[in-house]
Amino acid sequence: MRLKHIKGADEKVFSHPMVITEPQKYHGKWQTVFQNNQPIEMEIGMGKGNFIIQKAKRNPQINYIGIEKYSSVLVKALDKVTDSLPNLCFLCLDAKELPTLFDHEITKVYLNFSDPWPKKKHTKRRLTSDNFLSFYDDIMQTEKQIEQKTDNRHFFEYSLKSFTDYGYHIEEISLNLSEDEKEDNIETEYEEKWKKRMVPIYYVKVKK
Amino acid sequence: MRLKHIKGADEKVFSHPMVITEPQKYHGKWQTVFQNNQPIEMEIGMGKGNFIIQKAKRNPQINYIGIEKYSSVLVKALDKVTDSLPNLCFLCLDAKELPTLFDHEITKVYLNFSDPWPKKKHTKRRLTSDNFLSFYDDIMQTEKQIEQKTDNRHFFEYSLKSFTDYGYHIEEISLNLSEDEKEDNIETEYEEKWKKRMVPIYYVKVKK
Repeated sequence: MRLKHIKGADEKVFSHPMVITEPQKYHGKWQTVFQNNQPIEMEIGMGKGNFIIQKAKRNPQINYIGIEKYSSVLVKALDKVTDSLPNLCFLCLDAKELPTLFDHEITKVYLNFSDPWPKKKHTKRRLTSDNFLSFYDDIMQTEKQIEQKTDNRHFFEYSLKSFTDYGYHIEEISLNLSEDEKEDNIETEYEEKWKKRMVPIYYVKVKK
Repeated sequence: MRLKHIKGADEKVFSHPMVITEPQKYHGKWQTVFQNNQPIEMEIGMGKGNFIIQKAKRNPQINYIGIEKYSSVLVKALDKVTDSLPNLCFLCLDAKELPTLFDHEITKVYLNFSDPWPKKKHTKRRLTSDNFLSFYDDIMQTEKQIEQKTDNRHFFEYSLKSFTDYGYHIEEISLNLSEDEKEDNIETEYEEKWKKRMVPIYYVKVKK
């Protein structure tokens, strides 16, 4: 995503009540943030937030944490939250920091239209590389689930190899999500745009 | 594939020197058929034979066995073998019989454009069902490899789930084989036809 600098984004993000500004305080005790014992699911690279906001609205019995690196993007998600959503909060940070902030507390990770980092020398930056899969091991509970969507064929092929090499098995897969019309699918902003252009959207849910 | 009855096919197939008519005799000693210790690879459902004949021509250091259920199809493959190919032989039988004929002697199984058996009640008939994967366990050596090609998206999705559920990991994958122009790809008769119609061909190599 091309980033536009948005004046005052940092200030707005870090003073917003739904943004956790000192996440290290909650290491091992994220349930206290939500004040319940519901499972916690996380979207890494949530962009403008449509996916995770809709998820939180539809599933009050699940807690959601949205991770976004750039305040100039996260600020747009904050503008979208009009209702009270006690089961949703946001973190503005790099995914690399996650293992220091969570202790096997997450049940599912969502990766929607992540940067494919197509160059071979950038493989380790892909959110489905063994590098990041080991981070997810640290933050996720014993039973692990990852759901990925992307329109990038080579990135998806890479991810399938990487997941299964790492011991995950495929629970659900679609090589053309728009055609399958999965009932519970929530479209991201990006997905809506590409769907209109008839580009196939790839989807997989893996478990281990 | 719609089958035409071909008069005299049975006679031609079962008297052809490259067709093994009493395969049960070689259980545990298939190397004696080829009179060497080369690895043995197998195509199940070889159809008109282009794939396995080309494989055998290109790789004299590997032995190949082509399996085809219908003599009226196999007879067309036999017509294509014009050169001497001591590293290739054929069996005319149902894949269900394989576990009784081989004892952990195969290194790789090829499944090219197998019948997708789209109806749920026919799942067990799919050559990538757990049913058949257990047969391949019986015929393959400790290190197992399966390569699959198909133009049927739902069958491919099913197969990826089935393989990874069964402990295989994905070694190589292409969601558009024609576009990737894989150098060592040998096209089947079926593939050539569908490629011209711009239908994506799915390919995967799995290992366990």
